[in-house]
Amino acid sequence: MIYSKIPLAQTLVSLCIAKGINHVVISPGSRNAPLTLSFSQHPKIHAYSIVDERCAAFFALGMAQQLCKPVAVICTSGSAVLNYYPAIAEAYYSNVPVVVISADRPEYLIDVGDGQTIRQKHIFKNHINYEANLKQDITHKSTILSETHQLSPDMEREIQQGIQAYNEQEINLALNAAVEKNGPVHINAPFDEPLYDMIAAPTVSPKVQPLVLEEEIDAEKIAKAATIWSSSTRKMVLVGTLPPHTISRKYLEVLAKDPSVLVFTETTSNLRDDAFFNAIDQMILPIEKNEALLDEFQPEILLTLGGMIVSKKVKAILRKRQPKHHWHVHENSVFDTFFCLEHFFKMNPNHFFESFFGQTKSIESSYKSFWNMIKEDRQQKHDQYLKQIDFSDLKAFETIFASLPSALILHLGNSSTVRYAQLFEIDANIELFCNRGTSGIDGCTSTAIGNSVGAEKQTMLITGDLSFLYDSNALWNNYIPKNFRIILVNNNGGGIFRILPGNKNTENFTTYFETIHSHTAKQLAEMYHFEYKTATDEMSLQKALKTFYDESEQPKILEIFTPRIENDSVLIDYFKFFNED
Amino acid sequence: MIYSKIPLAQTLVSLCIAKGINHVVISPGSRNAPLTLSFSQHPKIHAYSIVDERCAAFFALGMAQQLCKPVAVICTSGSAVLNYYPAIAEAYYSNVPVVVISADRPEYLIDVGDGQTIRQKHIFKNHINYEANLKQDITHKSTILSETHQLSPDMEREIQQGIQAYNEQEINLALNAAVEKNGPVHINAPFDEPLYDMIAAPTVSPKVQPLVLEEEIDAEKIAKAATIWSSSTRKMVLVGTLPPHTISRKYLEVLAKDPSVLVFTETTSNLRDDAFFNAIDQMILPIEKNEALLDEFQPEILLTLGGMIVSKKVKAILRKRQPKHHWHVHENSVFDTFFCLEHFFKMNPNHFFESFFGQTKSIESSYKSFWNMIKEDRQQKHDQYLKQIDFSDLKAFETIFASLPSALILHLGNSSTVRYAQLFEIDANIELFCNRGTSGIDGCTSTAIGNSVGAEKQTMLITGDLSFLYDSNALWNNYIPKNFRIILVNNNGGGIFRILPGNKNTENFTTYFETIHSHTAKQLAEMYHFEYKTATDEMSLQKALKTFYDESEQPKILEIFTPRIENDSVLIDYFKFFNED
Repeated sequence: MIYSKIPLAQTLVSLCIAKGINHVVISPGSRNAPLTLSFSQHPKIHAYSIVDERCAAFFALGMAQQLCKPVAVICTSGSAVLNYYPAIAEAYYSNVPVVVISADRPEYLIDVGDGQTIRQKHIFKNHINYEANLKQDITHKSTILSETHQLSPDMEREIQQGIQAYNEQEINLALNAAVEKNGPVHINAPFDEPLYDMIAAPTVSPKVQPLVLEEEIDAEKIAKAATIWSSSTRKMVLVGTLPPHTISRKYLEVLAKDPSVLVFTETTSNLRDDAFFNAIDQMILPIEKNEALLDEFQPEILLTLGGMIVSKKVKAILRKRQPKHHWHVHENSVFDTFFCLEHFFKMNPNHFFESFFGQTKSIESSYKSFWNMIKEDRQQKHDQYLKQIDFSDLKAFETIFASLPSALILHLGNSSTVRYAQLFEIDANIELFCNRGTSGIDGCTSTAIGNSVGAEKQTMLITGDLSFLYDSNALWNNYIPKNFRIILVNNNGGGIFRILPGNKNTENFTTYFETIHSHTAKQLAEMYHFEYKTATDEMSLQKALKTFYDESEQPKILEIFTPRIENDSVLIDYFKFFNED
Repeated sequence: MIYSKIPLAQTLVSLCIAKGINHVVISPGSRNAPLTLSFSQHPKIHAYSIVDERCAAFFALGMAQQLCKPVAVICTSGSAVLNYYPAIAEAYYSNVPVVVISADRPEYLIDVGDGQTIRQKHIFKNHINYEANLKQDITHKSTILSETHQLSPDMEREIQQGIQAYNEQEINLALNAAVEKNGPVHINAPFDEPLYDMIAAPTVSPKVQPLVLEEEIDAEKIAKAATIWSSSTRKMVLVGTLPPHTISRKYLEVLAKDPSVLVFTETTSNLRDDAFFNAIDQMILPIEKNEALLDEFQPEILLTLGGMIVSKKVKAILRKRQPKHHWHVHENSVFDTFFCLEHFFKMNPNHFFESFFGQTKSIESSYKSFWNMIKEDRQQKHDQYLKQIDFSDLKAFETIFASLPSALILHLGNSSTVRYAQLFEIDANIELFCNRGTSGIDGCTSTAIGNSVGAEKQTMLITGDLSFLYDSNALWNNYIPKNFRIILVNNNGGGIFRILPGNKNTENFTTYFETIHSHTAKQLAEMYHFEYKTATDEMSLQKALKTFYDESEQPKILEIFTPRIENDSVLIDYFKFFNED
């Protein structure tokens, strides 16, 4: 008795499994009982129960990121599904296949005053790759309506066949779209009472429609680009968010060796190499007003890879000093980030490089050697500055990044955390994630925990205090591995706002922008059974980090208190320091 | 220097104040800086800073409920605004005027890879009364675009006048719709950098368009209804959710005295009177299979007032045993809850009754006296049963409801709490609220706290453990009055699921439906500075309640632990008991 009696529930389980989905995150409810009962008891399904749907969806996102395949989230009818929206928008913009399956009331019970009922169709319309609005099985309608609509058995059978065919088709299209378009899809499934009846074997055997994975390979366009590339002495490759191990080592080496190519990699690109420029803001923030150096910086060709770019400065500079040619290579999507996009190569970057590097020629150039000199200077100044500063966010991040074990999956919280990370060289073996699709602080912890559950390596989140408190319900989770770690850099509010313009020494600023508070993770750690340690200066931080990654009986939180008022001047002076003699 | 330099920000502040909005809830961000700076420093505005936007919107909802006028919520661009959605759907279905003002990037920065950027237009489309998608001031465009689009000063002035006129018109329509349609509206406001520039006096003076409040008064329809009413001996008035003091005492007395009228009031109707039937489920659950009594119950005329109806049973019974005539009276909206709606009187119920009762005549009937006998029997059995049971949810609720002071605003959590409340007579002076628009558990605590901030009386929330944990961030709030109270009935999971069908003694049930846990409010109380007491039996509960409502230096949480396994049988036996001799 592991299948719901309702054909639609059976169809969903059967097609999810056929498509390789075997992780589902379920939030409690009654309307979704046909799904909960069928999925959670199926031998091919790992089910996870999470009450807060906002956390559940981010958790699924983290798991899908780690597993590199779709993960489903299942909720009951009503406002439940709306709580998925922040994670769905993140998944949409960061290309993560999250499959939302929302149980719904049947059509005739919507907008008639029933509880936990809203208009669920099209709610994610702006940020979804496919919407399957399924039909209720006519063989499973409650007596209220079937009494008034009498049908002959033959006619009922025929109508049900039509419904079944429609539902199979729509579910196939939705599940395929999750993979083909690499992003979220929404399946809305109406169920009528009784919701809890079970049977031993399914009564339907849905047809599986194959995936259609298409690349747009335009050989002529690639050849033209290769010709331009071969004659240009100033080429920049800028890499935004990329999953680990996306780009083959051999193509990276071609780029690394080319004297006419600067490779700027963001922390979130998972491409960290000594031959690349891995600390973008450190390179360019000090030159933003130096027109001569900006002249030297401006590339003729800009080749971008990956998703969103964190560095605001590199966007601002390249928007003002646009390259002659901007090409983007991505399997799914493109943004005209610099308002001068010339070509979009909608293909796997390895396939692109295979074809492209077969046709390019090398050219002499001093582009890279010039910037390498500056890079070395920056690194020296960076080390020098870091030695002389007091304990602060910047110092704490230096100490943390120096402590990271190689075999780590690192998740970065948004706002300050990811921006500080851009200033440091991080071990190239570390697999790094950050919710840069929408750059929200709303689900960083849940995502990291989802990531950890799907992972073989140890997973750690580094987060600020606002992100941590915002997503505190993430810790209400029974699946957190013992080796999961959180480093919480607590500067008592939104420290990032202190770096922005505006008067910082008013009550208005501290209340509405910085939103200062005096909360810590102490009580949450106790409540959710985390080991809890604190650090307040470099020495206590060094000491705490020594054993922090070791095996333990409980997951751990290390909370680092940094000085709220001083942090921003330390950072501002850091960038000034590069221009000092 | 209290106004943003940006005309659109000035226009929003000016029109909100002109429309009587002087409470705004602000979440931190940079894109909304022009709004934050202008609203938070304006002498006519009470501003509240809340970080988690999900809580912020429910907080605004609670405040708007209590103040009976629009409250604005302001957030930055990106996923922030998506976190408002659960509260917006609730506001939509429960007729509460919440005004969402979301800051947005300018059009040219959407979908080009900028951080914290999504497609904000139309996101609430399914559940919003008006969407104003405003235009960016052309006089306030960043240099990136203005360099490429050179306009003469005259032309720029002319275009800006058009933009200003459009924005004024749209903001007026949105703010008016919040009141006219009594529900949420969404204003999306794009701002370009620089965001922090301020000036001393506004540079625009927007025109204010008056409200248009219309009632659809159809004298003929009312006269016809009055004639039918006068000749019917079986009339039922069923009242769903209503704000306190909605219906004039004199009309209630007419209904109370009429022997042919049964008035069924739900707990959330705020109409509690000895002459009415205030415990609907207690009346009808025991008769649901008694066809003879159902015959006696079925009304000829069903007149419904208010919003959503909590009792599933009364909906199920009246759907099967439909009245000949169903009329609904409401200022804003109607649902055909019983699939037999004949007339919708879209008007204030007092205006309706004034006209209606001027034309009705009394008629002899035993309808009410018959059901009054049953009601008395129910009340006796209720008392008798409650005396004999062990400590449990039911017993705890009896003890709590008996303890309530008259001058209280009571907020009920969803699921079990509001359903238990339907079984008890609650002091008629208590003003009662519950989020029954979508019946979600997602924002009960935030709503209650919002309610308390706008209130002169003491406010208390009674909630279950899942609702409480779900909305734990509600407590991250600097505005909670010292006299605010929470009673948390903790049965270690979703107790309501134990009452539904399905096998309750499996791990599958406790994991995915009941979602059992062992968390308490202890640590959250410590973290957010609440006084914290517990009760585990009737005696300790009685004792704790004795001083619970007294003045205090901190708000208080009383956590009551009830026996998870026994609660549902106590409740099921309660309903059986009415049919025993």
